[in-house]
Amino acid sequence: MIIVMKKNAEQGQLDDVVAWIESSGYKANVSKGVERTIIGAIGDERGKIKLKAVETMRGVEKVMLILQPYKLASRESREDDTVIKVGEVEIGGPKCVVIAGPCAVESEEQLMEAAYAAKKAGASMLRGGAFKPRTSPYSFQGLGEEGLRILARAREKTGLPIVTEVMRGSEVELVENYADVLQVGARNVQNFALLKQVGLSRKPVLLKRGMMTTLEELLMSAEYIMASGNHQVMLCERGIRTFETATRNTLDISAVPVLKEKTHLPVIVDPSHATGQWQFVRPLAKAAVAVGADGLLIEMHPDPDHALCDGSQSLKPEKLYKLMEEIESIAKIVRKGYGQKHGLHQS
Amino acid sequence: MIIVMKKNAEQGQLDDVVAWIESSGYKANVSKGVERTIIGAIGDERGKIKLKAVETMRGVEKVMLILQPYKLASRESREDDTVIKVGEVEIGGPKCVVIAGPCAVESEEQLMEAAYAAKKAGASMLRGGAFKPRTSPYSFQGLGEEGLRILARAREKTGLPIVTEVMRGSEVELVENYADVLQVGARNVQNFALLKQVGLSRKPVLLKRGMMTTLEELLMSAEYIMASGNHQVMLCERGIRTFETATRNTLDISAVPVLKEKTHLPVIVDPSHATGQWQFVRPLAKAAVAVGADGLLIEMHPDPDHALCDGSQSLKPEKLYKLMEEIESIAKIVRKGYGQKHGLHQS
Amino acid sequence: MIIVMKKNAEQGQLDDVVAWIESSGYKANVSKGVERTIIGAIGDERGKIKLKAVETMRGVEKVMLILQPYKLASRESREDDTVIKVGEVEIGGPKCVVIAGPCAVESEEQLMEAAYAAKKAGASMLRGGAFKPRTSPYSFQGLGEEGLRILARAREKTGLPIVTEVMRGSEVELVENYADVLQVGARNVQNFALLKQVGLSRKPVLLKRGMMTTLEELLMSAEYIMASGNHQVMLCERGIRTFETATRNTLDISAVPVLKEKTHLPVIVDPSHATGQWQFVRPLAKAAVAVGADGLLIEMHPDPDHALCDGSQSLKPEKLYKLMEEIESIAKIVRKGYGQKHGLHQS
Amino acid sequence: MIIVMKKNAEQGQLDDVVAWIESSGYKANVSKGVERTIIGAIGDERGKIKLKAVETMRGVEKVMLILQPYKLASRESREDDTVIKVGEVEIGGPKCVVIAGPCAVESEEQLMEAAYAAKKAGASMLRGGAFKPRTSPYSFQGLGEEGLRILARAREKTGLPIVTEVMRGSEVELVENYADVLQVGARNVQNFALLKQVGLSRKPVLLKRGMMTTLEELLMSAEYIMASGNHQVMLCERGIRTFETATRNTLDISAVPVLKEKTHLPVIVDPSHATGQWQFVRPLAKAAVAVGADGLLIEMHPDPDHALCDGSQSLKPEKLYKLMEEIESIAKIVRKGYGQKHGLHQS
Repeated sequence: MIIVMKKNAEQGQLDDVVAWIESSGYKANVSKGVERTIIGAIGDERGKIKLKAVETMRGVEKVMLILQPYKLASRESREDDTVIKVGEVEIGGPKCVVIAGPCAVESEEQLMEAAYAAKKAGASMLRGGAFKPRTSPYSFQGLGEEGLRILARAREKTGLPIVTEVMRGSEVELVENYADVLQVGARNVQNFALLKQVGLSRKPVLLKRGMMTTLEELLMSAEYIMASGNHQVMLCERGIRTFETATRNTLDISAVPVLKEKTHLPVIVDPSHATGQWQFVRPLAKAAVAVGADGLLIEMHPDPDHALCDGSQSLKPEKLYKLMEEIESIAKIVRKGYGQKHGLHQS
Repeated sequence: MIIVMKKNAEQGQLDDVVAWIESSGYKANVSKGVERTIIGAIGDERGKIKLKAVETMRGVEKVMLILQPYKLASRESREDDTVIKVGEVEIGGPKCVVIAGPCAVESEEQLMEAAYAAKKAGASMLRGGAFKPRTSPYSFQGLGEEGLRILARAREKTGLPIVTEVMRGSEVELVENYADVLQVGARNVQNFALLKQVGLSRKPVLLKRGMMTTLEELLMSAEYIMASGNHQVMLCERGIRTFETATRNTLDISAVPVLKEKTHLPVIVDPSHATGQWQFVRPLAKAAVAVGADGLLIEMHPDPDHALCDGSQSLKPEKLYKLMEEIESIAKIVRKGYGQKHGLHQS
Repeated sequence: MIIVMKKNAEQGQLDDVVAWIESSGYKANVSKGVERTIIGAIGDERGKIKLKAVETMRGVEKVMLILQPYKLASRESREDDTVIKVGEVEIGGPKCVVIAGPCAVESEEQLMEAAYAAKKAGASMLRGGAFKPRTSPYSFQGLGEEGLRILARAREKTGLPIVTEVMRGSEVELVENYADVLQVGARNVQNFALLKQVGLSRKPVLLKRGMMTTLEELLMSAEYIMASGNHQVMLCERGIRTFETATRNTLDISAVPVLKEKTHLPVIVDPSHATGQWQFVRPLAKAAVAVGADGLLIEMHPDPDHALCDGSQSLKPEKLYKLMEEIESIAKIVRKGYGQKHGLHQS
Repeated sequence: MIIVMKKNAEQGQLDDVVAWIESSGYKANVSKGVERTIIGAIGDERGKIKLKAVETMRGVEKVMLILQPYKLASRESREDDTVIKVGEVEIGGPKCVVIAGPCAVESEEQLMEAAYAAKKAGASMLRGGAFKPRTSPYSFQGLGEEGLRILARAREKTGLPIVTEVMRGSEVELVENYADVLQVGARNVQNFALLKQVGLSRKPVLLKRGMMTTLEELLMSAEYIMASGNHQVMLCERGIRTFETATRNTLDISAVPVLKEKTHLPVIVDPSHATGQWQFVRPLAKAAVAVGADGLLIEMHPDPDHALCDGSQSLKPEKLYKLMEEIESIAKIVRKGYGQKHGLHQS
């Protein structure tokens, strides 16, 4: 941590800050420049957020942190890419994995049709929500456990592993009985109680970035899960909230290479929620593969016009088939050496 | 709902949209303009979010909603201001209510000192967190139930009602045993499971706006609580996330008059979390009173330099005393007719 | 334009609004719904921004515009893609065009080295700034006309057309004497005086989106240029300002397909300014090609460590060579039918 | 400047960075911590933006600047508040100055009516645009020099000094012949050519913050004007662009105390442009006075329903009369010691 003193800070104020640093178990290194005196506080600053309180001390202009606040999630702690196995599927490896399916499980018929279409398209996993977080209390809230049972039957029929959302800590146990991957939704990315609970599960977690979450905060949320014991976390970029309203959210495509530099965890992109409009899903899916995403989460519905949820962003099956070919061609060009040493696919 | 057809939409496409609207139980009103045909779908559109799926239909350019998606929270459903009573304290009435106290309950000694200082300053309620949502899993997470007990003892000694955060649906019952007002934190503003649970409580709820929540979404979250049966909701503006980093968040002061127009619920402002720096709390608190806020949530700590949490934004007791005088003088000028008909204090 | 009346609007207020619409030369179409009366004002609303003043009339809840405010730039006014020719180079055609070069012209030596490297890499045009807009008055402000002369000599030697920025209306004539394409920088995107001036030029214009410009505003700025007579406008996405600070700006990759839907003008992507860090330029350049960009603007410097401007985001020549191969492979997959009917490459 | 080396940086890389710092005329101070080596580059870093190029050097993790990049505008360079005199009016002194008038000069009749109303209300200066920056090329662009002449006649009649916008460097001379204060609009805040030109004028400048401008960038733009010789700059907060769309822009009220801490220049608030809706102007104007603004810029129009520009945000004269009383009462409470030593009105 670096503490910058005000230009006119007095010696006594400097002494107070040094004393405070040392009483907190750090070593102080004072450096007097032409216009400013700066103090380095040497030691591990993570978890010592209270150190920031030094900002209120007299004579202090600003405090700058040096280290990233996460450990387990950082590329430093593990140089090789993490590859997560779900049955036969590997996320973070040489293949760009496609997870397809409807926003919500609406009925057995609807989900089965979607599942067979996903299978036919060549998707690797099936998604579908049984518990739905909805902005309005008057919207469809999901089928609950019955939805989970339908998902399990779809897995039986198609062999596709199931990704589904869990919304409450108290429901983690229920959901992990059916699901292969637990999804934590964008609005729960800082629901720390839930993060701790999925951290106790042995099922991999797909953690969606909130629309207001910085990449550092996303990695801190992954750290919550990992610190609870579950290291199988895949991160998912799904658009952030900005001033631009032409698309529902703004897909932060740069998040992929930035995350690949900072962490060893796999990174997935969800172009459907990012844009909210099906006609932009295809170009954005291609961009996501080209930028280096390890997987895609794509909403697909057999009958989008009659979907109970997010129909406007869902692809019809035939559009997905077409897109899959392009995804594979681009993946061949850009994914060489993935799932190995980080150094191989950077620079 | 208004549906705008594309310039070159065909008659068949128009017919399909009209058929779809009518099959959904609405009345269609087609109006052909010079460059566009628009269709009005007449009926109550709330809770029918699936209607938006019409956006995917061929020939449709865009869909515009007419009604606000919330009902119970809207000024339309209740013209008079809601006044919430907590013991002797009235929120939403002629007085601008100050809720003061530390970010977290750290010890009995610290909280008692803070409580007496809040009392001396003339604050109406005491705040303090027993369960703390923290971005880092390595930060202090609160004293839990022991913190609640300390808060209750402070109430006994000072007579000040207690405002404290609840983070999990499963803990609502525990927290309401001790607290007078349940706080839902900014990161949980769309934790719908929690909102439903506090909606079943009979204790008033202080609902904080998330740092990237629109005012409409905030009102939808209030609607969740109200739809579950609890109409005693106070809204709290605490800063939104923007590109500006000079303050931790950007206090959206306009939120106060906008909310007063749209809803009958009381509106509180938290200048401490908004700025993250104690020296800006005083001017912003004054601005909040002047703009018409029904209350203020102010962090105050007997010893900010040694606070376990958010010390840099906490006022020392003596600064609070001084501020209270200014707050009262400004409130006298601006708060005439509050807590009565909305019409009295607008225009 | 649609005018929504308040729930409790009186008949007299409705009559006033109708009278106002008709006195403004529009036709009013009143539709009474269950909860709201809405009025359609039929007629061309573009350029009649004063119509929005109806929002202040008593009884009016809100006003919604139906038409896009731009005409010449809209896909409606021209269905086919605009292809801009600069010498042999076609922007908006089947090839994804790469414009490479340093941020600023620093010396003849530096620019020549860069120009030969761009040529060798297979870039189609050379970029370089002679007039530099700089946030600080103490930063290097460019070589001015001497820089333009150096650029012209580089064109002579390499045959590459020149793209360079013009900052003042009074300098347009000077710059167009040397340049093949006039660049309008992000900070000048709403410098309407400058837009009108480049609209009088016969040289194509590369218009950069501002970091807080909506796509609609960008198209309005293009409309300024086109309304002045110059229809050869290419749009450039270069990152927008958001809350995320991991990259300098957030590349709004979705802007490409959104713009391709709304306008017939070519769309370029500048990954260098978007991220501000060279190591992210390569993945983002690939994403931009995959998403359908008609061209790329890439900063390349023979010696980034000693660049006078934006060294940290500049590629070394050898990195550009490598990137060009990938760009071409991806372009082959995604650019079929470009530069023809819009309909060919959407769906 | 502080350079943080990567965890695994090699000694040779460290040596290279040190050599580079020293060859650039700075002194390097190396400090080895437990996990990171950091290097302080001691010397005046302003205007040496190229130093940031060190970020591209091998082994470097990040670079952090210590000093503010502005000098003349900083509170450090001048501890006392700057008070700007325009005739009898003092901006930055004990009075909170109100500048009122219509968005645009539309006719002599309209402006005279507005001017007399401003005078009657007790406003100190008159605003009105003769050159209008408009997003659409089809909107009213102002009366030009004829508008300036009308403004001058209004000054003659009422004695109120005139504030009006200048849009082009080449028009500064013309505008300063008529105006008492030159306004630089939000969209021109980084039109560096214009900033330099008004810096050569002897008339005070009202510099509006852009909707995308950080406070640091705003101060850098003020620095451009001051570095050209004109130190009479007043800053104007007028709302920033955020994700919230309930108001046109989000008034960043915190900007006032933040700027008062960082600079000695007066700070004005424009609540009319910030919100875009007249009914929010009154509460926000009161908030602006309470937070410590030195002045207010308020749009007022004798007949808002028929305004050619921004009618929806303009107050009618009688609403302004009422507001002025409240402004004065609040100013009495909060403005003690203004226009003197900074220290008097902080803490």
